[in-house]
Amino acid sequence: MATICKPSVDVPEYVITMEETLRFAEETHHGKPQLPLALRLIRNTGVRKRHIVRPIEETLRHPGFEERNRIFEAEAKKRCPRVIEQALANARLSARDIDAIIFVSCTGFMMPSMTAWLINNMGFRTDTRQIPIAQLGCAAGGAAINRAHDFCTAYPQSNVLIVSCELCSLCYQPEDDGIASLLSDGLFGDAVAAAVVRGTGGTGMALERNASHIIPGTEDWISYAVRSTGFHFQLDRRVPGTMEPLAPVLRDLARSHGWDIARLDFYIIHAGGPRILADLSKFLGVDLHMFRHSWATLTEYGNIASAVVLDALRRLFEEDTVTPDATGVIAGFGPGITAEMAVGSWRMPVPASARRLAVPASR
Amino acid sequence: MATICKPSVDVPEYVITMEETLRFAEETHHGKPQLPLALRLIRNTGVRKRHIVRPIEETLRHPGFEERNRIFEAEAKKRCPRVIEQALANARLSARDIDAIIFVSCTGFMMPSMTAWLINNMGFRTDTRQIPIAQLGCAAGGAAINRAHDFCTAYPQSNVLIVSCELCSLCYQPEDDGIASLLSDGLFGDAVAAAVVRGTGGTGMALERNASHIIPGTEDWISYAVRSTGFHFQLDRRVPGTMEPLAPVLRDLARSHGWDIARLDFYIIHAGGPRILADLSKFLGVDLHMFRHSWATLTEYGNIASAVVLDALRRLFEEDTVTPDATGVIAGFGPGITAEMAVGSWRMPVPASARRLAVPASR
Repeated sequence: MATICKPSVDVPEYVITMEETLRFAEETHHGKPQLPLALRLIRNTGVRKRHIVRPIEETLRHPGFEERNRIFEAEAKKRCPRVIEQALANARLSARDIDAIIFVSCTGFMMPSMTAWLINNMGFRTDTRQIPIAQLGCAAGGAAINRAHDFCTAYPQSNVLIVSCELCSLCYQPEDDGIASLLSDGLFGDAVAAAVVRGTGGTGMALERNASHIIPGTEDWISYAVRSTGFHFQLDRRVPGTMEPLAPVLRDLARSHGWDIARLDFYIIHAGGPRILADLSKFLGVDLHMFRHSWATLTEYGNIASAVVLDALRRLFEEDTVTPDATGVIAGFGPGITAEMAVGSWRMPVPASARRLAVPASR
Repeated sequence: MATICKPSVDVPEYVITMEETLRFAEETHHGKPQLPLALRLIRNTGVRKRHIVRPIEETLRHPGFEERNRIFEAEAKKRCPRVIEQALANARLSARDIDAIIFVSCTGFMMPSMTAWLINNMGFRTDTRQIPIAQLGCAAGGAAINRAHDFCTAYPQSNVLIVSCELCSLCYQPEDDGIASLLSDGLFGDAVAAAVVRGTGGTGMALERNASHIIPGTEDWISYAVRSTGFHFQLDRRVPGTMEPLAPVLRDLARSHGWDIARLDFYIIHAGGPRILADLSKFLGVDLHMFRHSWATLTEYGNIASAVVLDALRRLFEEDTVTPDATGVIAGFGPGITAEMAVGSWRMPVPASARRLAVPASR
């Protein structure tokens, strides 16, 4: 049974509070008609602070797409190793035990992917599978967990390392002043996260079933315009309403597993924005308090794209209230509109004393 | 047992011959010191003609990264559906039977990936898994086959569609005149390819074992510089020599499967250039004639990146000389330096009359 162990998350040292974001917006849009809207959008994000890889003054200037990618590469190489080391330690594994690396990021582009550098510099085996994913946006966190689950289902003795490196501040586009840009300027934050999915053993959420879903006809609702200045985030005004069609999909996934989506013990939800959590609470009939880990990620770090689900899961681990066999769901949402979902139950190692009596845990 | 069925390949309508390439090089580099080298590199590619999505005059002008990506998207949407329809027909499946789409391309960037558009426009189920891979370059063809194999190993009743869309001419950089660029200007061609990996049933190569390998310390030997003008191909002069370290890796993979790499019945090799095939022939002790399908792809289409292995496999199918249980290997190479390899044997459906007596084919 594939089990996702405790994620490790690192946020950069430069902090920008909501008050500072509002002040920068006032300066940037001073005297322009969009200013009141920008201020309202920023206030409504629920984001209290965010962390970014470079000082704010530098972040607000666009040094060109080439330089942005150079910074992405340098920052990724600086910041990924420590979360990976911690994620390996959390899983009680070493780099040599890893059979595949799924590296997800939608905020910088490298070829070869960071997977090659990680293998060369962190002691991974030369036969490690490389699965870089750049085009699933915020849904890539859930997708990475699900593809790791699939891989461990195929090879139950294997272990998969997931790395999410989202340096959203490197996609800030000073010239953009559409609603999507005004919103994203106040919403997205930077973070690097890693977690190991173990095919056998491990403490964490046993991944029992996963599913993907695309909402038909919405592929241009969340997208990048790819330009000489890099990736420009585009968001349709209908996106905040997508939890209404996705809630039944989540309900069906739980039901196919014999569970009631409204009565799970934990919920790890992509906190794209406050409306997502509020609407899911309403449409699933789940108390908003159950989404407290996702909410904490949003308010303390902003929307950290594919890293949100890993950070919310880390917070669940750290709260340390989950009991064996507790049931839960992970759901990531992103461009497509795509949902990547998993259900599973909490798994702790059987103490040696009890092991002789235990029913085998694997299927 | 996962089986890769007959691929479908489509090359665009605009053709450029080696003679034309030489003539364009003479015009482009007229009076410049690199001209003799450019002509020699082009002659040595072994590429007799290539197909490109736009007329050559248009291809030689750089309309900007944004416009290039717009063209990529339009051409991908125009050209992918028909190879996909044919690949589905080859596998005797419909779009509704597909559980995952692996879309690989290193020559244009879209978010969401083409997978979203394909699902919305070609009748795929809304729960189809999307696995877009943009950062494995030429190795992505082998990687897609291997990840499809893994997925079908996890879920033996599933089917995976692989799509490779490589419009290399859209990465032509007129300002670049380093050796890598001069070479790539004469080497790369455009193609769109698709194939289905069936978890159960199907005629083709049964995928029995796969492996990845990275050559340590070579991550900057094949790479993209990502600039405001798009992706700039960079190639180290040591790349053509990489078959010497990779031959033993291929030999070990075959040996781990109980086979002798020198005595397989078919070889589907990424034809990155003529030296790759010549060196593999030498280091593996395999007659060059055994690489005739890869060689035909190279001479008739150029290096079509991740689509090479799919096109060479298509040619093997069309030669129609493979007999049941024939043994073979697929090997893709690309940035990392990464090799993505698979071994397997030829599988044909058991005739209904013989089926009652047959030993079950699945593991």
